Amino acid sequence: MIEKAVVLLSGGLDSTTCLAIAKQKGYECYGLSFDYGQRHRAELRAAESTAQRFGVSDYKVIPINLRAFGGSALTDDNIPVPESEELAEVEGGIPVTYVPARNTIFLAIALGWAEVLGAQHIFIGVNAVDYSGYPDCRPEFIDAFQTMAHLATKAGTEGHGPVFHTPLIDLSKADIIKLGLKLGVDYGLTTSCYQADDEGRACGLCDSCRLRRKGFEGACVADPTRYVS
Amino acid sequence: MIEKAVVLLSGGLDSTTCLAIAKQKGYECYGLSFDYGQRHRAELRAAESTAQRFGVSDYKVIPINLRAFGGSALTDDNIPVPESEELAEVEGGIPVTYVPARNTIFLAIALGWAEVLGAQHIFIGVNAVDYSGYPDCRPEFIDAFQTMAHLATKAGTEGHGPVFHTPLIDLSKADIIKLGLKLGVDYGLTTSCYQADDEGRACGLCDSCRLRRKGFEGACVADPTRYVS
Repeated sequence: MIEKAVVLLSGGLDSTTCLAIAKQKGYECYGLSFDYGQRHRAELRAAESTAQRFGVSDYKVIPINLRAFGGSALTDDNIPVPESEELAEVEGGIPVTYVPARNTIFLAIALGWAEVLGAQHIFIGVNAVDYSGYPDCRPEFIDAFQTMAHLATKAGTEGHGPVFHTPLIDLSKADIIKLGLKLGVDYGLTTSCYQADDEGRACGLCDSCRLRRKGFEGACVADPTRYVS
Repeated sequence: MIEKAVVLLSGGLDSTTCLAIAKQKGYECYGLSFDYGQRHRAELRAAESTAQRFGVSDYKVIPINLRAFGGSALTDDNIPVPESEELAEVEGGIPVTYVPARNTIFLAIALGWAEVLGAQHIFIGVNAVDYSGYPDCRPEFIDAFQTMAHLATKAGTEGHGPVFHTPLIDLSKADIIKLGLKLGVDYGLTTSCYQADDEGRACGLCDSCRLRRKGFEGACVADPTRYVS
């Protein structure tokens, strides 16, 4: 029997590669995105088109308004997105683009959907090498979430709760890109920028754009990103 | 300095008692409820009125549509709410009113709000004595969530993440009621029924109604619940 996997999709480079990996492993994939009030709404269109391209069995966008409490440059218009390396560093390692408890909330909802589907796998494209320093992208967080999840659900207490997969966690951005290209990812369809415009064009200046650009350079691959200028 | 506490409020007997306890401990309280597509929507009105009565500094209702994936008698109209003890037992300990990952999702969102507020406490009225057998009401689940939460957030990694309080976890329903009455809870304002009508009247037949009724009997206190018949 083909096993099912819920794959978190943000429309970006990492989660799209993650979906390609889950498909390549032979799982029946279910795409899950969140309309959480993010600035960069073009990512939802990117997520849907990559989900369709890889033939997911179902794709859901769950609205969860994290602007209700804000606290991040991505969910509060009063906090600007930093546009240089210096600005990000002022924050002492965790930049203002950090969204409080975001991956905890997303994984919790994925856990619920996985239980209803009977899915034994959840894929999340977190990366702890070329990343913004968010605490909820580190392996120790994912491990603790896994332990908690087994206790949280009916499936978990019955011994068939989902396994959380983080296939990108130790890869450089360049290695992620090289792997994705082998698996047929079209990175031109993905959007990573924290403040992409309505047409999905990237600013080229934010932390996410810089990491992405550095990845294409490192992989010695032409950068297919559409920039605003 | 007065410390802040986020208190999860369902409008029921347990969470209202929990709020009374947090207030009595001297915390500045922030009430949090969820409009998750539950059948028993009267509970949201009950939650708001108990929040106001205890003078919370802020009260939020976060919409999170768990009907998007269903899987529970509370979020899927095709699964009826069992109305006798026998029906619940058929399910082998965890009844069909169990909502997949509900407390995981609710605590995750509370964790995010707590971080933005700078709150050092989160109160949840889970109880593992007179309860429906839900896995996410047990102390081992809360402990694992606490461990995960310290790794999930910026506040946690900096050593000032919130502590999760479960003051009711070892109490019988009768003892919860006796404690709440001492702290000024008006249980007539609370709604516990899984299928309360629009006016907040209880069915008297579901698991939650039976546990609540037994609690008032055990506490030797008149039951203020309004029943449909």
